[in-house]
Amino acid sequence: MTDIEYAKGLEGVIAAESEICQIDGANGKLYYRGYSIEDLAVHSSFEETTYLLLNERLPTKTELTEFSKRMRRCRDLSPAVQNMIRDFPRTGSPMELLQSVISYLSSSVEHQIQHSDKCNCRQTLHQVAQMTTVIATYQRFREGKSYRPDLSQGANFLYQLRGEEPSAEEGRMLDTCLVLHAEHGFNASTFTSRVVASTFSTCYCSISAAIGALAGALHGGANERAMDMVDEIGSKENVDRWLDKALGEHRKVMGMGHRVYKAKDPRAIVIEKMLEELTEIKGRPELYELLKEVEKGFRARMEEKGKPIYPNVDFFSGAVYTLLGIERDLFTPIFAAARSAGWLAHILEQRKDNRLFRPKALFVGPEPRPYVLMEDR
Amino acid sequence: MTDIEYAKGLEGVIAAESEICQIDGANGKLYYRGYSIEDLAVHSSFEETTYLLLNERLPTKTELTEFSKRMRRCRDLSPAVQNMIRDFPRTGSPMELLQSVISYLSSSVEHQIQHSDKCNCRQTLHQVAQMTTVIATYQRFREGKSYRPDLSQGANFLYQLRGEEPSAEEGRMLDTCLVLHAEHGFNASTFTSRVVASTFSTCYCSISAAIGALAGALHGGANERAMDMVDEIGSKENVDRWLDKALGEHRKVMGMGHRVYKAKDPRAIVIEKMLEELTEIKGRPELYELLKEVEKGFRARMEEKGKPIYPNVDFFSGAVYTLLGIERDLFTPIFAAARSAGWLAHILEQRKDNRLFRPKALFVGPEPRPYVLMEDR
Repeated sequence: MTDIEYAKGLEGVIAAESEICQIDGANGKLYYRGYSIEDLAVHSSFEETTYLLLNERLPTKTELTEFSKRMRRCRDLSPAVQNMIRDFPRTGSPMELLQSVISYLSSSVEHQIQHSDKCNCRQTLHQVAQMTTVIATYQRFREGKSYRPDLSQGANFLYQLRGEEPSAEEGRMLDTCLVLHAEHGFNASTFTSRVVASTFSTCYCSISAAIGALAGALHGGANERAMDMVDEIGSKENVDRWLDKALGEHRKVMGMGHRVYKAKDPRAIVIEKMLEELTEIKGRPELYELLKEVEKGFRARMEEKGKPIYPNVDFFSGAVYTLLGIERDLFTPIFAAARSAGWLAHILEQRKDNRLFRPKALFVGPEPRPYVLMEDR
Repeated sequence: MTDIEYAKGLEGVIAAESEICQIDGANGKLYYRGYSIEDLAVHSSFEETTYLLLNERLPTKTELTEFSKRMRRCRDLSPAVQNMIRDFPRTGSPMELLQSVISYLSSSVEHQIQHSDKCNCRQTLHQVAQMTTVIATYQRFREGKSYRPDLSQGANFLYQLRGEEPSAEEGRMLDTCLVLHAEHGFNASTFTSRVVASTFSTCYCSISAAIGALAGALHGGANERAMDMVDEIGSKENVDRWLDKALGEHRKVMGMGHRVYKAKDPRAIVIEKMLEELTEIKGRPELYELLKEVEKGFRARMEEKGKPIYPNVDFFSGAVYTLLGIERDLFTPIFAAARSAGWLAHILEQRKDNRLFRPKALFVGPEPRPYVLMEDR
């Protein structure tokens, strides 16, 4: 339409500086504040990772104890929010409920602080802490189970979902999934959180907006669709036939390939190992074997075409959540609960050296024209 | 920190093409789809302007009648939403409530359509129509007044706020204020609505996110602060003294100057005329005189420095709302209610030729480093 060139979707355009997350796509590495996610998956907890993302360094034991205590104190929901969750039409998506609740929560903190660049961790913790409670309460109302806020973020979430304490391994696994999803640099939702934060809107409003972006079909939800694919395939024996048909129809094989990682997604490696353990614990080896068969078959077919494509984090995470007894429509809300830590880190970073985001539009519409009175139309 | 250059806040960077709004800053002109806002202010209604923004052309009489009927049918709030509004802590801001309600409403429409690029006007009308109802219901719960959905968007809003029918002039004035604020090209909130829409998230989630951006102190709210300034000045006689003191302290004089308009903001011209009429109707000439005195004194002082600075739309709109009996913390929600039409136009435009917004971050953080075990910290 015009000769002026610009980068559609701002592709390749640098929008800001950031110190939070480094992705080494060529070598399949991901670092939060310099620490590899392999190290964090083994040693850290979601609460500690949240501390690291927000405070730029690992906490001492005293700091972590104090931080976790504060975060756990923030888990309670007000009666008004409980009603919102109870009354939310079950035709709706829990992502929209989450977006709605998080901006509603904004009323519960001091506005002067929220709206300024003086926002400290006490406020920010509130959102990260309440996310899983909101999801679990939604599930509780759906199924009528009781809940009680205690344990680590991941283990407590399973407890709230199920109404009974998960095993130590299961709690640890879900907490590690939260760690692995806590941050991943700029993408549509994190960018949204920074654009909204750049107006000095509250952390709640900024995170609520980011949830709205993550809810989009082009952003979150790939692990839900990977499990839909598993259902469709049915069993290991059908994999080859299914792959030939899917590729013949140019369908997308879910959970394969990544825009940034040219090697295997480092999160996929950690989660695959977790899935292998979990399928043994649960006596469900067939799920792991089916996925490995899809990976093998798909990679073989791609390598024939000279395209090395590896599984990404979404390929295995849906299976882990399924074996942990989590319903499919909660996968993206869990992603939001984990990523809230990263969003907050970006919001705080944005505020430190803020410039309002205000790009230009290239106008290609009608030139000025006279208004036509109703009777002349 | 680095030698790589980039445009902070994406200043001057073209982010997308748009046909919706043209701003001629040098000549102080603003066009929606080619029609000047002076023409629209005189001839059009908010419902017609919404039609124009969404459908790219003025409606015929039959089309407008049908469109208005559909929009008015969308005004009803569900009991769950009424409870949310009733229970919203009065320490919170109505902007956060609005953001929360709009994403909550998402559950009430068909998701398949919302999430695709096939979203049509029936869905989109829902958000635009309910905005003023939410604000009025918030006010009603605050003051215990009754409400009934009828009349034009602007007149009905006044009716819902007050519990009694406004005069024809008052209804018309508020409707014109909605027309004047319906669209203004890219800015942080409209850009947010497009970033969220680019993930194929719902119109509700995209508008909810935009409200979050508009809530920020650097974006909406200038007319509230202009009225705070009027209160502080108190009376016409104090203007010169107040101006000298404020300028001496390098304080910002609210409602003066605009990033884009180098001539007088065309919306300010329309609203100023409206304010003059309204002060006569209400027998409050002193408010208009005070504002004109501030304008005169400020412009004289700026011209001495060779800086011609004119009032913008926020300079007069707060006074109009005040004389219409609207409380100050509802000014920005009204802005959101008006701008929802423009946001929707941008969301639909974004979907027509979508590319996910995903700019780059320039990483300036710590290089990879080993995890330090707790006992070694």
